[in-house]
Amino acid sequence: MCRWAAYKGEPLYLEELVSSPAHSLIEQSHCATRAKTATNGDGFGIAWYGDRPEPGRYRDVLPAWSDCNLRSLARQIRSPLFLAHVRAATTGATRRDNCHPFVHGHWSFMHNGQIAGFDRIRRQMEAMLSDELFESRTGTTDSELLFLLALEFGLDADPFGAMEKAIFAVENLSREKSGEALVRFTAAFSDGRALYAVRYATDHKPPTLYAAPMGGKSGYCLVSEPLNDEADTWVEIPDGSAVKVTAEGMQALLFQPEVLSEAA
Amino acid sequence: MCRWAAYKGEPLYLEELVSSPAHSLIEQSHCATRAKTATNGDGFGIAWYGDRPEPGRYRDVLPAWSDCNLRSLARQIRSPLFLAHVRAATTGATRRDNCHPFVHGHWSFMHNGQIAGFDRIRRQMEAMLSDELFESRTGTTDSELLFLLALEFGLDADPFGAMEKAIFAVENLSREKSGEALVRFTAAFSDGRALYAVRYATDHKPPTLYAAPMGGKSGYCLVSEPLNDEADTWVEIPDGSAVKVTAEGMQALLFQPEVLSEAA
Amino acid sequence: MCRWAAYKGEPLYLEELVSSPAHSLIEQSHCATRAKTATNGDGFGIAWYGDRPEPGRYRDVLPAWSDCNLRSLARQIRSPLFLAHVRAATTGATRRDNCHPFVHGHWSFMHNGQIAGFDRIRRQMEAMLSDELFESRTGTTDSELLFLLALEFGLDADPFGAMEKAIFAVENLSREKSGEALVRFTAAFSDGRALYAVRYATDHKPPTLYAAPMGGKSGYCLVSEPLNDEADTWVEIPDGSAVKVTAEGMQALLFQPEVLSEAA
Amino acid sequence: MCRWAAYKGEPLYLEELVSSPAHSLIEQSHCATRAKTATNGDGFGIAWYGDRPEPGRYRDVLPAWSDCNLRSLARQIRSPLFLAHVRAATTGATRRDNCHPFVHGHWSFMHNGQIAGFDRIRRQMEAMLSDELFESRTGTTDSELLFLLALEFGLDADPFGAMEKAIFAVENLSREKSGEALVRFTAAFSDGRALYAVRYATDHKPPTLYAAPMGGKSGYCLVSEPLNDEADTWVEIPDGSAVKVTAEGMQALLFQPEVLSEAA
Repeated sequence: MCRWAAYKGEPLYLEELVSSPAHSLIEQSHCATRAKTATNGDGFGIAWYGDRPEPGRYRDVLPAWSDCNLRSLARQIRSPLFLAHVRAATTGATRRDNCHPFVHGHWSFMHNGQIAGFDRIRRQMEAMLSDELFESRTGTTDSELLFLLALEFGLDADPFGAMEKAIFAVENLSREKSGEALVRFTAAFSDGRALYAVRYATDHKPPTLYAAPMGGKSGYCLVSEPLNDEADTWVEIPDGSAVKVTAEGMQALLFQPEVLSEAA
Repeated sequence: MCRWAAYKGEPLYLEELVSSPAHSLIEQSHCATRAKTATNGDGFGIAWYGDRPEPGRYRDVLPAWSDCNLRSLARQIRSPLFLAHVRAATTGATRRDNCHPFVHGHWSFMHNGQIAGFDRIRRQMEAMLSDELFESRTGTTDSELLFLLALEFGLDADPFGAMEKAIFAVENLSREKSGEALVRFTAAFSDGRALYAVRYATDHKPPTLYAAPMGGKSGYCLVSEPLNDEADTWVEIPDGSAVKVTAEGMQALLFQPEVLSEAA
Repeated sequence: MCRWAAYKGEPLYLEELVSSPAHSLIEQSHCATRAKTATNGDGFGIAWYGDRPEPGRYRDVLPAWSDCNLRSLARQIRSPLFLAHVRAATTGATRRDNCHPFVHGHWSFMHNGQIAGFDRIRRQMEAMLSDELFESRTGTTDSELLFLLALEFGLDADPFGAMEKAIFAVENLSREKSGEALVRFTAAFSDGRALYAVRYATDHKPPTLYAAPMGGKSGYCLVSEPLNDEADTWVEIPDGSAVKVTAEGMQALLFQPEVLSEAA
Repeated sequence: MCRWAAYKGEPLYLEELVSSPAHSLIEQSHCATRAKTATNGDGFGIAWYGDRPEPGRYRDVLPAWSDCNLRSLARQIRSPLFLAHVRAATTGATRRDNCHPFVHGHWSFMHNGQIAGFDRIRRQMEAMLSDELFESRTGTTDSELLFLLALEFGLDADPFGAMEKAIFAVENLSREKSGEALVRFTAAFSDGRALYAVRYATDHKPPTLYAAPMGGKSGYCLVSEPLNDEADTWVEIPDGSAVKVTAEGMQALLFQPEVLSEAA
């Protein structure tokens, strides 16, 4: 179980999520309270959108709590749209290429969750990728592969639809291989314009996801767990949901990969 | 609060303490049960005596649980005398030079504990060192400085006496500077022949220290917390004690820096 | 011998110095052409001024050429005033705390050169520092210590005067200790308003320093060696000089620590 | 172009190759004299056989010249059979998983050279692997993949035969894909009993390989470039050769993947 936080709204210093709040992401890297594993010390990463079409990124394998570079960057960089992640490794060794957020072109992606039995279906998942996406894979995590599958299935044209297809494909592969499937998936991703997030699990037990207004008009923050104790501020996003944050505010939708099955 | 384990006896693979036991040192780096802080993810180190007069050493800033080099070394290296440490930083940044064990010539040293108000007396402590010992200081921790002070006070000639003098000097400095003193000190050190350990605190609340026979005749293991649940095996070393492990087994002595005060 | 580049002028992406030019700083980390050592692979660092009074900083111990974080940051961050450095270690181990630029409050500092016989006078140099500056020392290099000495001697009130005093003090200490002195010093530093640089050596053989207009009206770039082959663009700053870049352009002055001696 | 050194004979401290000689491997990491690239600063690794069937391994991404762990280990560890490597990255990012030697079960492998157009055939090469070998791939280099292919083709039963088949398969894939093929391959590998090395290139321009007796009766050292200036001691292994070092000394054979083509 990892922890993450994402923001879209008026430009905000990254430290407003990463290091300043009582229960900031760095604090959660040491003492997460709503996670299976309290320690998220297997690396971290930030991706933010600035003047360029592609996001900037900084990630490293140290625990977030001891990285002075991260503190300095979070204090200097201000962005209208950013993602931040601290990792507790499940699949994939502790190394930079396995740290979230993953970036491909103007897309960024980060994830908390896992694919049960990933080792048994990794190869078939990779086989679904085009040569170009296959070659862009640099790590070994299930998270990066889910992101590349979503790109393969049309993330640009239909972000949530492509993500549903990716998860549906993984569940199908699992069932074919072992008779059962389990994907738990609480993720955030962005193309530099909107911020997308999904909370879904095959067994309806997805990792937590909360939202709160932040940073002035129509700005929103999405997080694995609340950044402070003001319970009234935070709304829990329900299982099977997708949310989209744009200049018009936050919009919630159903996220149902299983419907693809019925349609098929 | 850090965690450590040390051994002297028949040659043993380091993994017997570092990674194999149910509650191995690597396991403790993730989930210490008797420590103030459950996570000891701010680096680790091992020092072992082999064919050379000086010990070999490997240390790094990653959490011990994610370092595959450590697992491989602990599985390959067999030694009759070694020290292993996982760090939870109190004083001094996360970097290799601040990871225990510290080594000077044939001596090695590691520590769990702290000097209250260290920042206020660091400079005077450093001023007590000879040029040669001062120049050998490469980190910024109170632990390394206590070790160098003990070397200054004659660690070679009288290990426990020198350590008492070092702690007495620090307590005195603290009292001069602020009217009060607090040193908590549970440490192991070795010259390559015997294994020494001390459990002491000015306020009689030192970090824990346990001992158990291990590795055949007259071998002993000294640890911050037991490596398994066999409660009968582990003896708690009391506050104000020093133990020395040699080929003749383990010997316990009083450790009383305060007596120096009365003598003065 | 290290390599560095600094800029003051209209806001510029750091990559304009760090990675884009034919002979960029990253390129110089692999193949410096005018340095004693062609490889500068012992870490790197950047410091830039943005919205905060203190500079942002990113530094790490990897060779600059292989760090993808550096490339991403240099491409995203735009600043009117920044310093960048690649290191070839002479004094002090390869670790983050020994990587330039050094930062203290709103000041940043980086250096190419060395103090001959530094080990013999390090302790006396440190003794000249106030407690506050002494405690802020985290590394072991001669460069960081020169910077702290200059702060001690009034860098805020008179930047070049304080730097002259610092170098004069070091030369004096060396002469007292060993009968001779040699400081080679090509450095850049900033308080967030102006960019300062010095080229000086006791033996009149200082590391190189070049300047060129860059980034529009009154902007200047200062570098260890030119970033491209346009020889006409680059002016070599002579030995015994100080330059100051402000909104009014670049101003050159004499830098003569030895005059302090005559005055004394 | 990387640099490597390997040894089989009476137990020898690793430092005899890694750090002690005038032109030791660490020295070569800074200043290789017979390589295309003088700097091999993109990580390093050692693998040695001791009491266990599988080798011990230590590798990291820092330049070898600045790693104090490497110096300590090379000084302490003594082995009758070991491999050591310093890397100049061509394919694959600078990270531990891309550092040689690669290890699989009791086999170790390291390589200097490259596959031209590797990106175009990587996927087909991976497709040749069994699930078990595919899953054991953790990095992204052509070297690791050649090693896994050789394991697939029966490295255990016929080491040189399997390596010929692996290279033949790669050359064939290249020709199918692009009409031309170029593999340059100077590699050492071991199963813990014998030391194997190959020098081969499709275009007959393989990286250099030298051998010299070392460490008493029947011991041999194999290196990318000689460890000292005693020219008489070092024999250059010719292009298209394989050598095997056992307790009986060194044996040279032809290495001709192209013969497989004729046989086919």
